[in-house]
Amino acid sequence: MAFQKPPGTQDFLPGSVERWQFVESKARDICRRFNFREIRTPIFEFTELFQRGVGEATDIVEKEMYTFTDRGDRSITLRPEGTAGAVRAFVENKLYGEPDLTKLYYIGPMFRYERQQAGRYRQFHQFGVEALGSVSPSLDAEVIALGYLFYKEIGLSGVHVEINSVGTPAVRAVFREQLLGFLNPIREKLCKDCQSRIDRNPLRVLDCKVDQHHFEGAPSILDSLDEECRNHFDAVQRHLSDMDIPFSINSRLVRGLDYYSHTAFEYKAKGIGAIDTIGGGGRYNGLVADIGGPDQPGVGLGLGLERAVILLEAQEVQLERLNAVDVYLIALGEAADQELTKVLHQLRQRGIAAERDYQGRKMKAQMKSADRLSVRYTAILGDDELAKGEIALKDMTSGEQRFVPLDRLADEILS
Amino acid sequence: MAFQKPPGTQDFLPGSVERWQFVESKARDICRRFNFREIRTPIFEFTELFQRGVGEATDIVEKEMYTFTDRGDRSITLRPEGTAGAVRAFVENKLYGEPDLTKLYYIGPMFRYERQQAGRYRQFHQFGVEALGSVSPSLDAEVIALGYLFYKEIGLSGVHVEINSVGTPAVRAVFREQLLGFLNPIREKLCKDCQSRIDRNPLRVLDCKVDQHHFEGAPSILDSLDEECRNHFDAVQRHLSDMDIPFSINSRLVRGLDYYSHTAFEYKAKGIGAIDTIGGGGRYNGLVADIGGPDQPGVGLGLGLERAVILLEAQEVQLERLNAVDVYLIALGEAADQELTKVLHQLRQRGIAAERDYQGRKMKAQMKSADRLSVRYTAILGDDELAKGEIALKDMTSGEQRFVPLDRLADEILS
Repeated sequence: MAFQKPPGTQDFLPGSVERWQFVESKARDICRRFNFREIRTPIFEFTELFQRGVGEATDIVEKEMYTFTDRGDRSITLRPEGTAGAVRAFVENKLYGEPDLTKLYYIGPMFRYERQQAGRYRQFHQFGVEALGSVSPSLDAEVIALGYLFYKEIGLSGVHVEINSVGTPAVRAVFREQLLGFLNPIREKLCKDCQSRIDRNPLRVLDCKVDQHHFEGAPSILDSLDEECRNHFDAVQRHLSDMDIPFSINSRLVRGLDYYSHTAFEYKAKGIGAIDTIGGGGRYNGLVADIGGPDQPGVGLGLGLERAVILLEAQEVQLERLNAVDVYLIALGEAADQELTKVLHQLRQRGIAAERDYQGRKMKAQMKSADRLSVRYTAILGDDELAKGEIALKDMTSGEQRFVPLDRLADEILS
Repeated sequence: MAFQKPPGTQDFLPGSVERWQFVESKARDICRRFNFREIRTPIFEFTELFQRGVGEATDIVEKEMYTFTDRGDRSITLRPEGTAGAVRAFVENKLYGEPDLTKLYYIGPMFRYERQQAGRYRQFHQFGVEALGSVSPSLDAEVIALGYLFYKEIGLSGVHVEINSVGTPAVRAVFREQLLGFLNPIREKLCKDCQSRIDRNPLRVLDCKVDQHHFEGAPSILDSLDEECRNHFDAVQRHLSDMDIPFSINSRLVRGLDYYSHTAFEYKAKGIGAIDTIGGGGRYNGLVADIGGPDQPGVGLGLGLERAVILLEAQEVQLERLNAVDVYLIALGEAADQELTKVLHQLRQRGIAAERDYQGRKMKAQMKSADRLSVRYTAILGDDELAKGEIALKDMTSGEQRFVPLDRLADEILS
């Protein structure tokens, strides 16, 4: 019997894993430049954290969590997103006591039991940042710019930023009543998802893809913003323009999580089936207090790495060759074969990527291996050369071959 | 109510996460040089994979797995180790069909519900490699050398390699009877763990820390090896000597997993409470077939990263400063503050790590922030300088300050 991976999960294998390494190293480098530092929180948390931190009435908590009881009889959940854990760690480790702003990033697996479709996995991977401790709109803009730069630097084209203000809880309460006045009369015409959302979270109804044609003349939350919300939103836009980040305003944009206030934003791109949102985020001024911390504001983003990688492939973005092997060593004769272990290890200790045959194959098969690895050099050690303390070094680009002293081999390859 | 992380898990925060980044980047670089390439398998697998691949009679499968039923009513387990998933992926993705050897590495979280003690966590992290497709003893030695070089290059001292041969299943069957002949008469004197192990896995009894004084005169598996096993073990030792890897032979060394054959090895070091094994591995020639693949041999290792990091701290190994910020920008005046967003973003796009204040603090507090970040430069933009298109750039090491054109700021910092 052969085993298979669980449905909705993936194996990332040599040959494709390099795209992931590339995307992650870009994310890390951008975070370095923006002075966001890494945080790693556990893969699972107490279930209550997500009920509180993500919101009871969200699809995630209602339908999609991997929840189980551990051997100590506690309810544990595989993290469905990254913000709740990061904020829990911010509070538990009292990072809010530091004199400076806390700017964190994370990269890692998340888990949601979703219906399977193109671009959606049950184990998926996110790159996220969280900036905690400032209400400055320049920080909202910086977070949006960071995500935009990430997509740009990995080489994607056609990525578009949409922003909105979802106001404060007080603003939303007023708007909600207005919106219900518009939605209730047309309730019967709307799709099932919308009908069930009208009572739980009517703002999300306007984000529905199916029912857009029913929403002409719907009230806009932007008309309900108070002065504080309006000023904040204007400042975010000014900062984005100062940084030359192209964006458009989408007054119907609402994120799927309950905790946003003021700024909400998404990155959109075409090319992944029915999905066009590839990442997003927003400001969450109430979340830290909600999960038991001090009243500290925050703003963050989460980008789906599967979607970024799928787009890289769809747009045929070429990566620099990673995992290149520098030299392939071949032994001819018994004494040479014996010596190879030593030579190989010396090269590797000097920082050189070096490979050999382990299957007792003929020279021709070994040369083919060297070709498949696109090595820069092959080095052939015969018993005669060994006796003279030499090795034949062949440059695979020029075809030139020369004999070099064995103890100079690493220097020759590195030069 | 404030939330806490689940027992046995950790938050890795800025200030300590850099050790993890360092250790992981060393592991990746060594794998590059040894031509091992990364594989990423899911965090959870079907439970049966581990029952089959790790072994029913192991502590892991009997007592320590995080097993639960998913929403599709399948039994799922958070991976307790890395080999089973890697081998499952090797088989499922038919990597054995490639003409060359398959050399894989992984780095990531594993999960075991263990009693809590120093150096043991329920979510822990391993760096592992698996080489599949060759029976060559040079490969066993290469894998052992790779692990040894890892510890050496991260800067640990006092790491010691122990090796053993656990033979083939046929060799072990004979030795097992011999050993039972020795153990059964002293059964009552041994600790509870040993008593329960005698029937399930008597070879592991000899590895017991408590009962060593009862084992004088116990038979040694090395005396039971047949010619093939003996030749393989001799060759491994010869290769290790060729590479100058210091090692000793411990004929009582048996790994906790069922699947090893021929070579078994461990890395030992003092400094983590009662634990002295910091990593290990071995050859597993039957495992691939056991989980439904073709009859392909393998050899691998798994190193506990928590233990490596704890030792780094205990041995006070100093890392190069990572996450250094290059420049801190300060605005004086309203127009300058407005301009700062743009200047900051331009620097970051040029690869420079740049930071600013987001909390409207006074100049003095901002200078303190710059100090805490150990920046190389501070750059102060006043309204007057802005009007002239200049900015004051101060070298924090020399104390020298000069005015540079705004559009030359990035070049000045990079030069």
